[in-house]
Amino acid sequence: MKPEPLASLIRLDLPPPSTSDKTADADRLIEGLKRIGIDDVNVPVGVIRPLSKQLREDVFSITAVVGLRGDRVEVLDIGRERIFGIALDLGSTNLVCLLYDLKTGEVCDRREAENPQVRYGADVLTRVQRSMFGEYGLLRKALIDGVNRLIATICGLNGVGADEVFALTAAGNTIISHFFLGVDVDNIPLSPYIPAVNRSVVTSGHEVGLDIHPRAVVYVFPNAGSYVGGDIISGILFSGLHKEENPVLFIDVGTNVEVTLGCRDWIMVGAGAAGPALEGGVAGIGRTASKGTIRSIGIDNSGSLTFDMIDGGEPAGICGSGLIDLISALYSSGIIDRAGRFKAAEGRVFERDGEMAYLLHKGGGGELWLTEKEIGNFLLSKAAMFSFLYVFMRAVGIGFRDIPRYYMAGALGCGINPESAVAIGMLPDVPRERFVPLGNSSIGGAGMVLLDRRLTAEVEDIASRITYREMNEDGALMQVLQGALFIPHTDPAILKGL
Amino acid sequence: MKPEPLASLIRLDLPPPSTSDKTADADRLIEGLKRIGIDDVNVPVGVIRPLSKQLREDVFSITAVVGLRGDRVEVLDIGRERIFGIALDLGSTNLVCLLYDLKTGEVCDRREAENPQVRYGADVLTRVQRSMFGEYGLLRKALIDGVNRLIATICGLNGVGADEVFALTAAGNTIISHFFLGVDVDNIPLSPYIPAVNRSVVTSGHEVGLDIHPRAVVYVFPNAGSYVGGDIISGILFSGLHKEENPVLFIDVGTNVEVTLGCRDWIMVGAGAAGPALEGGVAGIGRTASKGTIRSIGIDNSGSLTFDMIDGGEPAGICGSGLIDLISALYSSGIIDRAGRFKAAEGRVFERDGEMAYLLHKGGGGELWLTEKEIGNFLLSKAAMFSFLYVFMRAVGIGFRDIPRYYMAGALGCGINPESAVAIGMLPDVPRERFVPLGNSSIGGAGMVLLDRRLTAEVEDIASRITYREMNEDGALMQVLQGALFIPHTDPAILKGL
Repeated sequence: MKPEPLASLIRLDLPPPSTSDKTADADRLIEGLKRIGIDDVNVPVGVIRPLSKQLREDVFSITAVVGLRGDRVEVLDIGRERIFGIALDLGSTNLVCLLYDLKTGEVCDRREAENPQVRYGADVLTRVQRSMFGEYGLLRKALIDGVNRLIATICGLNGVGADEVFALTAAGNTIISHFFLGVDVDNIPLSPYIPAVNRSVVTSGHEVGLDIHPRAVVYVFPNAGSYVGGDIISGILFSGLHKEENPVLFIDVGTNVEVTLGCRDWIMVGAGAAGPALEGGVAGIGRTASKGTIRSIGIDNSGSLTFDMIDGGEPAGICGSGLIDLISALYSSGIIDRAGRFKAAEGRVFERDGEMAYLLHKGGGGELWLTEKEIGNFLLSKAAMFSFLYVFMRAVGIGFRDIPRYYMAGALGCGINPESAVAIGMLPDVPRERFVPLGNSSIGGAGMVLLDRRLTAEVEDIASRITYREMNEDGALMQVLQGALFIPHTDPAILKGL
Repeated sequence: MKPEPLASLIRLDLPPPSTSDKTADADRLIEGLKRIGIDDVNVPVGVIRPLSKQLREDVFSITAVVGLRGDRVEVLDIGRERIFGIALDLGSTNLVCLLYDLKTGEVCDRREAENPQVRYGADVLTRVQRSMFGEYGLLRKALIDGVNRLIATICGLNGVGADEVFALTAAGNTIISHFFLGVDVDNIPLSPYIPAVNRSVVTSGHEVGLDIHPRAVVYVFPNAGSYVGGDIISGILFSGLHKEENPVLFIDVGTNVEVTLGCRDWIMVGAGAAGPALEGGVAGIGRTASKGTIRSIGIDNSGSLTFDMIDGGEPAGICGSGLIDLISALYSSGIIDRAGRFKAAEGRVFERDGEMAYLLHKGGGGELWLTEKEIGNFLLSKAAMFSFLYVFMRAVGIGFRDIPRYYMAGALGCGINPESAVAIGMLPDVPRERFVPLGNSSIGGAGMVLLDRRLTAEVEDIASRITYREMNEDGALMQVLQGALFIPHTDPAILKGL
């Protein structure tokens, strides 16, 4: 069976009415859809209104946009020639969107923008607290306005009308998904931590307040609790973990670290805060991937660092994968010690504003410095990530070497060098080919559902099978964390097994 | 099984969340409904928005308004204590509405008002013509404003808030139903006479533009073609004709005469214009039923006419049933001849403005006159009605005496005296107990569906079984009509059989 997008464009050649066939216009449309296998379709009044004129203008050869609404197919509009869809990753820090041509299933463009809620608080819990004190409306408006601006940008750049967007899928953590839907977040941070809704929500562009077609199908991924949001579920779908015969691991690193271990029989998720350091967000020189961003760093024969920039040009900053390489190179070159401290103020290491710092680059555009404090923050995030992973695996009783594949998404998903990550003790020391980068798995899963409505059932199934394991309550965590603050670890054997 | 209204109020005692039950609020509501047998319910985002607060205010003992939307049950609102419903008869001339308490199923009140579209044309075809020349918007607005005023009146008089109305059923002829939904009427009067929609439409208060709860379930009866509207289908449902073992007749007289003959195996409908005379609309003294309206007329021992007024008082006008009695009395007293002409200017018959007229009443409030021309118009309508009935029955091949019951609705449904109607040749000469008045069957059926959503399937079944018989094309009609212009008929035998 061919995949069916959440909204599809169908051309129908209907028999024109005659004295022997007086079927009404809407009934004729419904019967036409039935003949091609689309049963029990709903035609809303808003579509019947322009129908009679459109049918006669088009001499009963008409296009219909049909979409999934609940369990039922609905005619969203008629007389269209093009239809588009949008997959949205609602990140705490960044909003990412993909524009799809739903006639071909091809991606037209990808755009991202900062989540405007960041100005109300870098972490989502701060935003929830501000909401509880009367600023919910402001926070919701900031998010929806941000999404609408992103949609307007991507549509504008690609010559697509906002009302040509007939489907949108959105995946985000539980709190951001709640803001997106405009439902209460107040009870999420209070014991027993109850979301307003966990199930997937199928609604319309109008109901959410999006500047797309008002009847567009909007699908918001389900959550599996306050700490396991739709972004993780979307990522699991994208990784295929839920279909594996043997347990595999899926690590998504953003502001939080989310670790999923599972297979077709069971799925276990743990999550915890790691801070934005692994995304390059802590370093003053950190920046997201764009022209001039250093994405990887090597050491040449002379012992000097070599940079690889996105689209070449002058180095303008560094992203997460570059930072991992850099820390690894500084350590292997003996410039920093196991604790991440500079050994001596020599070579490119200088004292600057009372603090030791490494001069990564000096050019026409200015200087790029990495300070000792920034390295410390990075190591804290690295330690948190590895410790979560270690404690989680130990709780389940599976060793690092027993895992055939490590799917990596988020900050780890965009082409990090596993050698560097293992060298600094961020990832376990297993054969490097087991690390499989997935990119942005959250938007990947959102795109999959956009292009195949039948996957919504698979998503529900994933959500229902997830067990959440609280890790902050695990006493072993702090112990492992202390050692993981060093490069690669105070007990390097821990990287190989459990 | 208990009948279930289109919208019902349900009280749910939900288990409060705990550390061992972290079900989200919307999911908890859905599970609570499932436990009482309401499966696969949809909770729209607009209901999830206030849900978390309401659940905690009500300590998880909450009310939910659930309604049928398509094949699926939807939660329309939460936290209500009362819910109401409205049944609407969308007549060409009058709008009638019943207000129901949906908790008890009882009728609270009945109100009616003139259809404001009347100012654009007494008959619906004139209104369609004006629509085709750019006045559709005006005509639609007139109707919806009229309905909204009627709803505001009936709600206001009964202390009901507009947003407490969660269900509305509407039955009207095909054209008025189209105006109500806001869909095109342009193709209805043009061969091959194609409506925009025949199926029943289930939509919302918001979509139609009604001043009731925006998510209220609005059910508009299906049509069975351009000439057989939802009012007839609703009337058939109310009469029970579609369940009869042997064929019975159902006559609905308004501005049109609609004749339905059928049983559980088949249903045949014929319709034609009769003019408003049978409703009392042609006579200058005609008025709808209200205080002072003459509803029946007798002849006392002295040969004088005696009046029975609604709520007593001074005679102020006459309604359809009174007019039938009056014509019959004038004929049996020898005041008018078989052609409806006054025999002599004696007694209460005077020449007035160059025309013979009967002084029905003279009092403090003025004089009530019935002119010869008005009698002629009445006889034309009477003749049209009887001829339709006769030709229709003959086409089917069933005699008057073979019909065990004559259900009468509309102008005939409100207590006409069958003796008078038979005497003037308006109804066939069969045992009088076979005539069963149904009142306003259109609103009767609308009320039935409002109180029992399962009847929507029965309505669809009725609509699908209806065969329409074009009667204006029947050559025999004009022949019978000529004789029927006389009292009771030029060939009285025709009243007894076929």
